[in-house]
Amino acid sequence: MSNIPVARWWRSIATAGAGCSERLLFLARSAKRPPYTLGGYDGEVPGYTKDKQKIATRLRRIEGQVRGIQKMVEDDRYCIDVLTQVNATRAALESVALRLLADHTEHCVMDAIQSGGGTEKVRELNDAVERLVRT
Amino acid sequence: MSNIPVARWWRSIATAGAGCSERLLFLARSAKRPPYTLGGYDGEVPGYTKDKQKIATRLRRIEGQVRGIQKMVEDDRYCIDVLTQVNATRAALESVALRLLADHTEHCVMDAIQSGGGTEKVRELNDAVERLVRT
Amino acid sequence: MSNIPVARWWRSIATAGAGCSERLLFLARSAKRPPYTLGGYDGEVPGYTKDKQKIATRLRRIEGQVRGIQKMVEDDRYCIDVLTQVNATRAALESVALRLLADHTEHCVMDAIQSGGGTEKVRELNDAVERLVRT
Amino acid sequence: MSNIPVARWWRSIATAGAGCSERLLFLARSAKRPPYTLGGYDGEVPGYTKDKQKIATRLRRIEGQVRGIQKMVEDDRYCIDVLTQVNATRAALESVALRLLADHTEHCVMDAIQSGGGTEKVRELNDAVERLVRT
Repeated sequence: MSNIPVARWWRSIATAGAGCSERLLFLARSAKRPPYTLGGYDGEVPGYTKDKQKIATRLRRIEGQVRGIQKMVEDDRYCIDVLTQVNATRAALESVALRLLADHTEHCVMDAIQSGGGTEKVRELNDAVERLVRT
Repeated sequence: MSNIPVARWWRSIATAGAGCSERLLFLARSAKRPPYTLGGYDGEVPGYTKDKQKIATRLRRIEGQVRGIQKMVEDDRYCIDVLTQVNATRAALESVALRLLADHTEHCVMDAIQSGGGTEKVRELNDAVERLVRT
Repeated sequence: MSNIPVARWWRSIATAGAGCSERLLFLARSAKRPPYTLGGYDGEVPGYTKDKQKIATRLRRIEGQVRGIQKMVEDDRYCIDVLTQVNATRAALESVALRLLADHTEHCVMDAIQSGGGTEKVRELNDAVERLVRT
Repeated sequence: MSNIPVARWWRSIATAGAGCSERLLFLARSAKRPPYTLGGYDGEVPGYTKDKQKIATRLRRIEGQVRGIQKMVEDDRYCIDVLTQVNATRAALESVALRLLADHTEHCVMDAIQSGGGTEKVRELNDAVERLVRT
């Protein structure tokens, strides 16, 4: 390792089918970040990185919907109308879940397989699909 | 109607298989509330009235869960972990939906049938069950 | 009871908010059917009686779909295509479930409430909605 | 190609990250099968190949369940009891769907990625997950 510049070694950890790995994320976090990777460094990346802003925006909207439902209940609004809003919020959360899972598959799972592994990631993905369908 | 004290007339609107009716709710709201029903009377009652506090509490907790998910995304937490929290929140919202619908059936729908009607309420209930299942 | 003609007594069992009741159904079945209730007798009726033919037709079609899926697997057809047919069959079964439940509510539950009871039926309905949503 | 024995060429089509591809399946089917691949050759393989017998068995059982439901409706069985069986059948179909999708991911999708491609397969997988969740 002495032959590799720290920045390149670091990048290799952060990108080798990684960034998506809990353990590597932990490693990356516990390691001291080299201070000179100015901007060029993108660190650990979960699968949803590129959609991060979009997902954050959707979650804020969902938070607003939940607050709206609280207000409806507070105001004794009609059950069926409250239910309609609850369903709209459930659908919005389901969309976020599908987006997260799709991003995870497109990045974390694909990267892991391309790096020659991926069996564990695929098993984890299948479990996640099952929980998503059954929730 | 001149023979009935306003308070009793008002109560009769608010309880005759009612309180659960959108139109009656509207009527009740647009009518000027008699000023002497001090606190003790709260007028129109949606089906979830008795569970109102419990539902409000659950919704606050759900709002907290959604904020927690936003924080996880902000912190670049692992996709699958974020997904687990999204699923927990979806399950919590589903429970609220089921509670609202059950309360609605036990009160609004039952009251409407006992008052000799209810065909419309039953149709509306069936539509609500369908949307709940399909969301 | 000695004053009531058997046919009328029988009808009273079979229709008093009933026909929808498991226990009454059992009673009605274990009792010997009076041979002279020609045509006029409509016996125990589950909620889906009026839609019975339609539901039977749908179930036969669903059986055909399941056999079609078996054939696809037999023929090593592409996973995603098999999955599409499985989803179509799931949707068809869900529709049958919703139809059965709607008929049950419109008849068994409504009849029970109109006969002055129904608390037990409403609880059972709410449980059924919950299982339907969670399956 | 003239240098490769037909059987080996054929096998290379059927296994190169393939067997899972609709287009390759089509190719394999439209091609005349070499008559000398006696038994040892099983041609195109969908992802569920190893679970094929298990899935076939489950589907036969599901067909039996659907026939059982038809019999229940025929016999005017209680709505809620019929519904319970419909739900059991829905759950069984959902399990088959999850099994098919997991096998597809573990084989077809993984093979495609390992062969240097897979972008299209991952997109198709994500769409399939979405339809599975939304059905």
